[in-house]
Amino acid sequence: MPEIQGLEDSAQNSDIDPELDAWEQLEAIVAKGDADAVRTFINNLPPGESSRLITQMSEDEQQELLSILRDEDAAELLGSLPEIQAAQLLSSLPADQAAHIFDEMYSGDQVGLLDQLSEQQSNAILEEMKPEEAENVRFLAKYEYDTAGGLMITELLAFDGKLTVDDVISDLRTNAEKYAEYNVQYIYVLKEDRQLHGVLRLRDLLLARPKHTISRIMIDNPTRVSDSTSLQELQLLFDSRPFFGLPVVDAENRLVGVIRRADVEKASEEEAGRTFLQFAGILGGEELRSLPLKIRCARRLSWLSLNILLNVVAASVIAFYEETLAAVIALAVFLPIVSDMSGCSGNQSVAVSTRELVLGVIKPSDFWYVFRKEFTLGLINGIVLGILLGSVAWVWKGTPALGLVVGGALAANTLVAVCLGAMIPMILKGFKMDPALASGAILTTLTDMCGFFLVLSLAQLMLPWLVPRV
Amino acid sequence: MPEIQGLEDSAQNSDIDPELDAWEQLEAIVAKGDADAVRTFINNLPPGESSRLITQMSEDEQQELLSILRDEDAAELLGSLPEIQAAQLLSSLPADQAAHIFDEMYSGDQVGLLDQLSEQQSNAILEEMKPEEAENVRFLAKYEYDTAGGLMITELLAFDGKLTVDDVISDLRTNAEKYAEYNVQYIYVLKEDRQLHGVLRLRDLLLARPKHTISRIMIDNPTRVSDSTSLQELQLLFDSRPFFGLPVVDAENRLVGVIRRADVEKASEEEAGRTFLQFAGILGGEELRSLPLKIRCARRLSWLSLNILLNVVAASVIAFYEETLAAVIALAVFLPIVSDMSGCSGNQSVAVSTRELVLGVIKPSDFWYVFRKEFTLGLINGIVLGILLGSVAWVWKGTPALGLVVGGALAANTLVAVCLGAMIPMILKGFKMDPALASGAILTTLTDMCGFFLVLSLAQLMLPWLVPRV
Repeated sequence: MPEIQGLEDSAQNSDIDPELDAWEQLEAIVAKGDADAVRTFINNLPPGESSRLITQMSEDEQQELLSILRDEDAAELLGSLPEIQAAQLLSSLPADQAAHIFDEMYSGDQVGLLDQLSEQQSNAILEEMKPEEAENVRFLAKYEYDTAGGLMITELLAFDGKLTVDDVISDLRTNAEKYAEYNVQYIYVLKEDRQLHGVLRLRDLLLARPKHTISRIMIDNPTRVSDSTSLQELQLLFDSRPFFGLPVVDAENRLVGVIRRADVEKASEEEAGRTFLQFAGILGGEELRSLPLKIRCARRLSWLSLNILLNVVAASVIAFYEETLAAVIALAVFLPIVSDMSGCSGNQSVAVSTRELVLGVIKPSDFWYVFRKEFTLGLINGIVLGILLGSVAWVWKGTPALGLVVGGALAANTLVAVCLGAMIPMILKGFKMDPALASGAILTTLTDMCGFFLVLSLAQLMLPWLVPRV
Repeated sequence: MPEIQGLEDSAQNSDIDPELDAWEQLEAIVAKGDADAVRTFINNLPPGESSRLITQMSEDEQQELLSILRDEDAAELLGSLPEIQAAQLLSSLPADQAAHIFDEMYSGDQVGLLDQLSEQQSNAILEEMKPEEAENVRFLAKYEYDTAGGLMITELLAFDGKLTVDDVISDLRTNAEKYAEYNVQYIYVLKEDRQLHGVLRLRDLLLARPKHTISRIMIDNPTRVSDSTSLQELQLLFDSRPFFGLPVVDAENRLVGVIRRADVEKASEEEAGRTFLQFAGILGGEELRSLPLKIRCARRLSWLSLNILLNVVAASVIAFYEETLAAVIALAVFLPIVSDMSGCSGNQSVAVSTRELVLGVIKPSDFWYVFRKEFTLGLINGIVLGILLGSVAWVWKGTPALGLVVGGALAANTLVAVCLGAMIPMILKGFKMDPALASGAILTTLTDMCGFFLVLSLAQLMLPWLVPRV
């Protein structure tokens, strides 16, 4: 655990030219090969800056940096980076070096990182780790990544409830150094067979009589979470109450770990980032520019190629109306507008539904509540937008019927898009699929088809009023 | 502070028919008017469920619920809801009732909520609050919402460094009840004029000699943050080190408050939610379906009307080429495809840049690094997508030149979109504007114009090969 220390005393610690930018300074210090100087430099960087510096280093420089650092410092550095960047750095190291760094990390971080590596890489690292650490990781790796079991740490303090306050305090004093790493806030009290019995706050230990047993001063029947609790439930739980950490128990109520607020928070942030990127069509949900080009291209293209297919399907509607289009070529100007505007309206609804699902404000079963709310909104927005675009079309071409066709089609299609956009994420979520990823593509395909159909079929109906009589 | 208690003992506490769904159960309990029963019922709901239930209640029912609850329980309930929902509930209450609930909230939550109310509403509430609470809120309200000053709480424990361990422990014992609300992890040690001197961990107090002064056992020169520190810096700081809370000082190093991990986390989540919604064109960045329809329509429409204008500008490019289009009507099928695909490619880049900016992996000054990375990717993806769409066009219409025109235009426009998409958020951020909000609209307008121009001007050049000779 890093000590609490001042952040201000950062400038004076090196004889490196302060005129150099941070990157050049780090390069110069790494070149000197002084582990302490590198550690001090990195610790004194503004938060987040280490991640940015490493991004800009070449792979060789990154390896050099990690080789110079002591294992515990390298572990701390990796723990502070976005998970995907840390995994990328680790995968470039020889397995034994990676394993030594791994040994120094929190168990929760270890599992998260191994999850991002290939099976071959993670096995190689596990084989080189200390046997007891590796066994612990293998135990934790059985859990799904986004459950309490997958996010918890196993470094915790637990004592039998029959011990006295004195026993516990003297054990704390004796093992102070080891426990300092655990960053303990609560002490867990156990019954037979590691059954969770109670929880003890440090302040209560501080104020209690030395001869009392700890089961007497503990808080009985503490809040606990099952190891299968999902990330979303954990997030809501920690949001609603000021816990710093909660004990995690298995199906038999045996204490298996501690889930800390910080772990839930980090996982939620990574999850929110993934949702955001998936919404914009980044498959796998995480991309940093420092990833290899091949992976970045492949991930983006797999999404885009699907999209091109859907686009062709949608646009094929236009092909059925080429005669109408040829007669009123001005329609070609408005087709992309109707398509884009409906996409925008629909995406707003998709975003609100996705957000409300994440917040837990709605569930897939609240279908009709959401539909009623969106229908009214879609109707109003449709009418307003229809009048706007219709007026533009009328004024521009001087043909009132063109305004009617384009405006009417946009109004109707906005209503469709708003309702579909609200429903699709709920339906996907109901089928346990990820709403952020697929909603946009499904939505725009459907609204494009519907929009093109509306514009062109309306135009066909109104053809006599659209084509100036010669 | 809510006590730590079992979550399991939820089912047996009422004589309400368990067959009813949660909403009907709550209705029945509220109708009985028993404050304790309502509190127990809400506390025993699964996390997040209270927010969902309240969403579905009418305004009258919501008011009835808040009136039945004791002020401290109502404050706890509001604290657990998304901020925008809590603000909406509060604004429906009479000012004096709202003020009594306010008095029971953490100072940080008070400020955040007042920020969401109209000036008239928040003044009315401030006037009805306890004078010392209201003064404190007015002091905090001077800070920007997304800074340490705006997010911190002022409920903290601070002692003069000359006091002994014994003095402090006996003060803690005497005021145990009051301090219990503070949820204290650290004790702050002050010098003259409230200058921050050090920080004392409870465990050190536990293990120290009673007669020592606390300045002797404190950690000297602790990490502190200035009251103007931004949310992003706080987020990176808490991500990189396992602090539970940090002291906040003003420009003269006087202790003004404590910023807790949970506050940073909650603010970050709200911020991430806003970013996500803004990215999809929800102005103001927060929308729940329980908001009044008028507000929801206005927010969405203000964005959509701007967009319709930009769309008309972009599509007007098409109008310049109506003759070409009339000659090769098949082009009309491909214009929306090129527009949509370029938008998708560009949005992927926008999302990655926005995400990297949030993570702190890049800064606006890393312009060239990002450009180089995106250029290569844009080139590759452009060629792949161009070949795909070009082949479709060729096969479909049997005209190789059409494939060349459509494929070539998409390839070039993908490169443009990928680079623009990566750059626009960085430029906006460089000008201190919000990248999530405007990037998408600027991007699609530019790429649409460019895409339409490329398809149609290429087609004009290749017209002899496009039109079957009669």
